[in-house]
Amino acid sequence: MKKIKAAVLGCTGLVGRQFVRLLDGHPYFELACLTASGRSAGKAFAAAIEDASAIGGRAAVPARAVSAPRAAAVAASGAAMAFSALPAALAAGLEPELREAGIAVFSNASAHRFDPRVPLLVPEVNAGHLDMAAGQGRGRGGFIVTNPNCVVAGLVVALKPLLALGLRAVTVTTFQAVSGAGRRGVAAWDILGNVVPHIAGEEEKIARETAKILGDLDGGGVRPSSLEIYPSCTRVPVRDGHLQSIGAEFDRAPDARKLVAALEGFRSLPQRLRLPTAPRRPLVVRAESDRPQPLLDALAGEPERARGMAVSVGRLRLRGRRCDFFLLAHNTLRGAAGGSLLNAELAVRRGLIPRSGA
Amino acid sequence: MKKIKAAVLGCTGLVGRQFVRLLDGHPYFELACLTASGRSAGKAFAAAIEDASAIGGRAAVPARAVSAPRAAAVAASGAAMAFSALPAALAAGLEPELREAGIAVFSNASAHRFDPRVPLLVPEVNAGHLDMAAGQGRGRGGFIVTNPNCVVAGLVVALKPLLALGLRAVTVTTFQAVSGAGRRGVAAWDILGNVVPHIAGEEEKIARETAKILGDLDGGGVRPSSLEIYPSCTRVPVRDGHLQSIGAEFDRAPDARKLVAALEGFRSLPQRLRLPTAPRRPLVVRAESDRPQPLLDALAGEPERARGMAVSVGRLRLRGRRCDFFLLAHNTLRGAAGGSLLNAELAVRRGLIPRSGA
Amino acid sequence: MKKIKAAVLGCTGLVGRQFVRLLDGHPYFELACLTASGRSAGKAFAAAIEDASAIGGRAAVPARAVSAPRAAAVAASGAAMAFSALPAALAAGLEPELREAGIAVFSNASAHRFDPRVPLLVPEVNAGHLDMAAGQGRGRGGFIVTNPNCVVAGLVVALKPLLALGLRAVTVTTFQAVSGAGRRGVAAWDILGNVVPHIAGEEEKIARETAKILGDLDGGGVRPSSLEIYPSCTRVPVRDGHLQSIGAEFDRAPDARKLVAALEGFRSLPQRLRLPTAPRRPLVVRAESDRPQPLLDALAGEPERARGMAVSVGRLRLRGRRCDFFLLAHNTLRGAAGGSLLNAELAVRRGLIPRSGA
Amino acid sequence: MKKIKAAVLGCTGLVGRQFVRLLDGHPYFELACLTASGRSAGKAFAAAIEDASAIGGRAAVPARAVSAPRAAAVAASGAAMAFSALPAALAAGLEPELREAGIAVFSNASAHRFDPRVPLLVPEVNAGHLDMAAGQGRGRGGFIVTNPNCVVAGLVVALKPLLALGLRAVTVTTFQAVSGAGRRGVAAWDILGNVVPHIAGEEEKIARETAKILGDLDGGGVRPSSLEIYPSCTRVPVRDGHLQSIGAEFDRAPDARKLVAALEGFRSLPQRLRLPTAPRRPLVVRAESDRPQPLLDALAGEPERARGMAVSVGRLRLRGRRCDFFLLAHNTLRGAAGGSLLNAELAVRRGLIPRSGA
Repeated sequence: MKKIKAAVLGCTGLVGRQFVRLLDGHPYFELACLTASGRSAGKAFAAAIEDASAIGGRAAVPARAVSAPRAAAVAASGAAMAFSALPAALAAGLEPELREAGIAVFSNASAHRFDPRVPLLVPEVNAGHLDMAAGQGRGRGGFIVTNPNCVVAGLVVALKPLLALGLRAVTVTTFQAVSGAGRRGVAAWDILGNVVPHIAGEEEKIARETAKILGDLDGGGVRPSSLEIYPSCTRVPVRDGHLQSIGAEFDRAPDARKLVAALEGFRSLPQRLRLPTAPRRPLVVRAESDRPQPLLDALAGEPERARGMAVSVGRLRLRGRRCDFFLLAHNTLRGAAGGSLLNAELAVRRGLIPRSGA
Repeated sequence: MKKIKAAVLGCTGLVGRQFVRLLDGHPYFELACLTASGRSAGKAFAAAIEDASAIGGRAAVPARAVSAPRAAAVAASGAAMAFSALPAALAAGLEPELREAGIAVFSNASAHRFDPRVPLLVPEVNAGHLDMAAGQGRGRGGFIVTNPNCVVAGLVVALKPLLALGLRAVTVTTFQAVSGAGRRGVAAWDILGNVVPHIAGEEEKIARETAKILGDLDGGGVRPSSLEIYPSCTRVPVRDGHLQSIGAEFDRAPDARKLVAALEGFRSLPQRLRLPTAPRRPLVVRAESDRPQPLLDALAGEPERARGMAVSVGRLRLRGRRCDFFLLAHNTLRGAAGGSLLNAELAVRRGLIPRSGA
Repeated sequence: MKKIKAAVLGCTGLVGRQFVRLLDGHPYFELACLTASGRSAGKAFAAAIEDASAIGGRAAVPARAVSAPRAAAVAASGAAMAFSALPAALAAGLEPELREAGIAVFSNASAHRFDPRVPLLVPEVNAGHLDMAAGQGRGRGGFIVTNPNCVVAGLVVALKPLLALGLRAVTVTTFQAVSGAGRRGVAAWDILGNVVPHIAGEEEKIARETAKILGDLDGGGVRPSSLEIYPSCTRVPVRDGHLQSIGAEFDRAPDARKLVAALEGFRSLPQRLRLPTAPRRPLVVRAESDRPQPLLDALAGEPERARGMAVSVGRLRLRGRRCDFFLLAHNTLRGAAGGSLLNAELAVRRGLIPRSGA
Repeated sequence: MKKIKAAVLGCTGLVGRQFVRLLDGHPYFELACLTASGRSAGKAFAAAIEDASAIGGRAAVPARAVSAPRAAAVAASGAAMAFSALPAALAAGLEPELREAGIAVFSNASAHRFDPRVPLLVPEVNAGHLDMAAGQGRGRGGFIVTNPNCVVAGLVVALKPLLALGLRAVTVTTFQAVSGAGRRGVAAWDILGNVVPHIAGEEEKIARETAKILGDLDGGGVRPSSLEIYPSCTRVPVRDGHLQSIGAEFDRAPDARKLVAALEGFRSLPQRLRLPTAPRRPLVVRAESDRPQPLLDALAGEPERARGMAVSVGRLRLRGRRCDFFLLAHNTLRGAAGGSLLNAELAVRRGLIPRSGA
């Protein structure tokens, strides 16, 4: 089968580079176009990113020039789809233009997450919401699918199997890595040897996005979940991996073995479809007394292509109707580029993007 | 008035050094004896601690030799009281010996915190528990008073004014500094760029110690408080200052202004008595969007002698019966040496340690 | 005596804030004007700097509004002098304008350091260069005096007493703190757990500025020193304090005792004049095996007003004509605001700025 | 061909774990025995190391028990060779015992580095010194081969091609990662946000070991090189990778192109023999303005099996007879386990350890 041509929008930032790395050798997709704004446009990718190795991998750096972020350039490349790591303000205008041009947009940007026609998708959790994409394109084939905030992406994977046990309310305190703010988003002066108990807009996003993802399709839109969420967000001097301290309250005291079994045994559509970026086990339950840790566990997930896509859970403590635990997810993989790619893989397998060929 | 002679037990560790620094120029107490175990005994203090400046202050290093930790040595120095920064195993035996010798022991060690005759004291919170000390000494004047774990010391100061508003349950996630584990307690390899979601025994201490401190005197002992506590503890790459993310649940929705007023207006016995180490305001409520931070706020507290004794509170978010906020307290000051010293100052003013006159 | 009115230009950055803090209670100067560009202009200082405590001190935050950086505003304030923490591009134009207006400018900016009429001054090292200031002002009283780069400021203090021993060449490897790049100058992503072996333009500045400071007055200008310098600069994840590893080569093997005596006994004009910001000992020679360290020694210097102005030297290793050692200086105090202030104090005592009397 | 059975002595430390990881799937060797002292002996390896993933790789953890460090246990396992990550005190006695038992010992310990019969070997630099091994065993086949200190291992690879250009003296300032001191060797309290300008014994080792490695075989022993070395060592808050700032002085000014060509073109015996752990290019010369960096470049080296074995060189600055540059080498790979393994591979190819089979 021929691979589907894909663009990466905003290719020079930390998330954009992860998209480029993940597309290297991907079984469904091939890179056809790179865009970036400002000084990068017109340069070779290697020159635009300065330090290719900074993404942490050893992927080949594509010998490709970077275009300015314009819909015409993307369309001219033959791309049928685009992965967007654009800043929200730029995504607001460009992503709909691409949709109008018939392109399937998988966006990590926040701009359209609450558009009532746009799914906010985590395939292990609400694959059915992908149906919303069909209604967007007015017959031209284009649509926008978004993935959530980097905290929410990991959180909902862990909450999904708990819902059936009567989950009622969740207290979340986050320990967020500096990569979550982008390459220059956190100044060393502010965070070295420190913890900053605030990330602008983050707590609001966590509450609102979780409610949409866990909500039910209702007519064309989504009726938000009524799960109570109490988020408190901090930035910590860690490079990659968002740790979360979770206090889960249930309507009734869950059985300890059932609860562990629900987490460990959790498998969902991406696993059944064996999507390339889907981890064999979406949740890895750790039995050690001091895990998960960002440094040791951020890249959890198998096979190789799914590294950083598994969500690690540990230190489960059950007491009556309450269960406290820690969870960890890689913020630029499960929480950004990897999540978006998984959405695209699901869309391909659901027939929303034709794999030409034969 | 003559000053009371005091010993510092375990003077070479991070808490021991804080005791030495805080006693420099203290209006009630003067240093009469230093003890440390192992290789330090027999050395001059300056030689024993290697790097005097590591305690962060500019206090004079006393030109005094360090004794082995034996009751006879303490008694021989003429000390009427002792501040203990001993490890628990050593404190278990030595502190009662000192009590038998008529010495008033103010201990940061955990060994005797749950002895039913020993108060676990935070003067702003449960000053009345000091009455328990009187019954210990069999007429000889000696007694043991303990201060709590470094997390609990800050936590209970913030919870105290909330109890009158109907506080019912508390979720606590901690971000604990490396100094809390002692000078060599955390290996750089484990914590650089990392968060470790476990501190051995800490969560149990938080629940149990908070219950004793907030409990009521009942006969000779304490009937523990029934406040629900859900602690989750982590170590972070921060030097000093334990940050805590708090989720407080009330029986009924508190009024926002009353809640802020209760915190800001909180004053207690140490403030009324103007104890030297008591901060003018035990709770500093921060209005900024991103405070308190360990690096900026660990040393909160006025006057100079009370630096590191104020507990900072910030990011108050009230929603129905729930109030989420962050708090910060200096772990080796409010949470250790400073707390112990405040206990001793209260004991002096309550007449439990005679200040010999002229 | 009445105090001299002073402006602080660029008051919101890390160096600007140090100027404000150091002027609080200064015996010669009083704050008359604050300027900052962009969004800060028009705000109260407290609002402009966001986090007053970030400068690390407990100085009162002046209740004063911030003006836009214009010469007219400075002159209107009645300021007879200005301390400049301006970025170089802004300093290039504004500092000469202020000079034309009769104002004495003490500048930490690099813009005019190589103007042949402008002294590059470190009072312990080349106090005589201050004579250059007199020739600048065309009778109006205004002039510009600059202080060097934050590495050079500490380096030349240590090299000065070695010159008499036949110092010929110096190899310097720096370990520079993040504050040296300004509040947002180093991204956490780049430096957390890392060392970056490059600081743009720094090595060139070190060579060229050292040559000017150690040079001889010759006619109106300075004939650069011929001391060989081989600098290699790095950024390390440290907040304050630039450590330097020095390899000094002499024409002839120096005597060990004489060398140590030359460093320890070094006193200069600022010490003789007892300038308020002059440390009693400009060089503190440490005998320990592992000092100086940024965390422990950056604030060396006595009295209180001179904290961070002493340069610490340690690990002296003499072998033939070679002496290797480490030195440490506080980069925003000795290396910036404190150095500039010391220059101004010298200028006052040399009669270049009239202290109006009663 | 059958693989040679190998033991790993001291398998639970950071270097021991690297040995275990590197032996996984090795073409010449197979793991036959693990030893560790104290509490680990008798446990399964996975239990002994607590956190298998801490070695940073994803190698299978061998399902094998750990023996106490005794020669009999090693011999009983059928091991023909042993990789030693023992502490020096233990290595002093055990390694000669193993040699007596006919076992070829490749040791990272410092105990026998200056035994006149024992080679201190870096295959790219002094492969000929391996001849010394033959004389040790008294016909039984056992011998000891050592690899140098973690700084020296990288340094000599970069110096080797410069010797032919007239290298005369070298100034070295190191930036050493915490892993170089072992898992618990550096306390977080000492290094967080700090630089410590001292590592006990390190500077002496650098001078003495470099002299032996670069020396000439002379009779049975080595006549040390007369290259002058001026080392200054520091510990920095970095996890892996020792950066070095080098000032190289030549007898005559080297030609810039020849110097770069000598470094880039450097290939040696391990490359010609295509030893499995030999990097294709022992020296990687970086042209960027800010490389090498520990975080980005510590794992330089190809193929996969040689990751962390290439030495990165950058920021070459030539001025007359002087060339300054930075170099970086991975301290537990090129500087420890990988270096030792390369020594063993060379010994196999030189016929010193029979590969049984056929």
